[in-house]
Amino acid sequence: MKIPRPMQKLIESFERLPGIGPKTAQRLTFHLLHFPQEEIQKFADSLLGIKKEIKLCSECKNVSEGDLCDVCADDARDRRTVAVVAGPLDVFALEKTGYEGLYHVLHGIIDPLNNIGPEEIFIEDLIVRVEKMLTGSNRTENLPEVELILATNMSMEGEATAMYIAKMLRDRGAAFESLKITRIARGLPVGGDIEYADDVTLSRAIEGRSAY
Amino acid sequence: MKIPRPMQKLIESFERLPGIGPKTAQRLTFHLLHFPQEEIQKFADSLLGIKKEIKLCSECKNVSEGDLCDVCADDARDRRTVAVVAGPLDVFALEKTGYEGLYHVLHGIIDPLNNIGPEEIFIEDLIVRVEKMLTGSNRTENLPEVELILATNMSMEGEATAMYIAKMLRDRGAAFESLKITRIARGLPVGGDIEYADDVTLSRAIEGRSAY
Repeated sequence: MKIPRPMQKLIESFERLPGIGPKTAQRLTFHLLHFPQEEIQKFADSLLGIKKEIKLCSECKNVSEGDLCDVCADDARDRRTVAVVAGPLDVFALEKTGYEGLYHVLHGIIDPLNNIGPEEIFIEDLIVRVEKMLTGSNRTENLPEVELILATNMSMEGEATAMYIAKMLRDRGAAFESLKITRIARGLPVGGDIEYADDVTLSRAIEGRSAY
Repeated sequence: MKIPRPMQKLIESFERLPGIGPKTAQRLTFHLLHFPQEEIQKFADSLLGIKKEIKLCSECKNVSEGDLCDVCADDARDRRTVAVVAGPLDVFALEKTGYEGLYHVLHGIIDPLNNIGPEEIFIEDLIVRVEKMLTGSNRTENLPEVELILATNMSMEGEATAMYIAKMLRDRGAAFESLKITRIARGLPVGGDIEYADDVTLSRAIEGRSAY
């Protein structure tokens, strides 16, 4: 007795998703068998919908239904500050903090082990965008000081990506001199315990200390 | 900044699946954004496929591509033995043990707390099927002894369902007298530790002891 072919196909589709192993894929597929037809149709439509209806914002590459995403289209945002993040989920996380600047979504992180180089993610677009902001050919004409906050993860890949971007921008010469490049703080998380913090985190917390 | 509507729809579809919470649904949706179009199309097609191409076997209600499932269509199986299980995944589990009889898939378990009564699952079909087997109007004409193995979970609902089925069949009177109804064994699992076994399991292991 083998699992019927159509179910096997769905199991394989589920297995391609991150964090879903063969057992979970099987369980989900058999569970869906009892869903009403319209529920399944809705699921399939919404799957196709994200490819058909979702674009990347022409300015910041965030997910969007229109040409510009909600953030870039909002005139109340601080247009002198751009947070560089790896993915759209990071945008939603930063939005919860009350951050009022713009974003630039890289859609990935430099990761040589997984064959992801700087060309695979939106770094070139970032440089072009920053250049426009600095030279005033964008909406920021009267706003000379631009700050780029490198808000990638504190992982090895995140750090490498931040370093790469900073280096690329600094190498651009005169036009980029007024650009302020910052990196989000490294330190102990809220509730963090000095006794149990690892050496690197702790030494970075000391390095990054601020007036009290 | 809100999550764009098409993505929100897919997140909601994922959230309906068992074991997938809002965070996982979000992660899966954003991950799918980077899938190639044909991959997404395949996923959507396989979703619709399970409704279009999967039927329930007319005899045992197991999932099947044709009118009869692989087990019921296989003449080498022991047609005097029917294991009653809650779902198709139980069939696949029992198949791995080398069990050679037939199955009857209930597609659920009696669970009053979730509004699932005996009418919601294939119990009536089981009774009709057993009656046919016993009165010889099915393929089992020359096989008078029929054994029904109640192989539902050892949970409260599984036990209640097994009891309900046994009672329904025994109440049917004369024609059902020759029917042998059994229940899979309760006891310590392989590798089980007497010291750590709970009282109920242990007392059932003693009750069910066999000659050694």
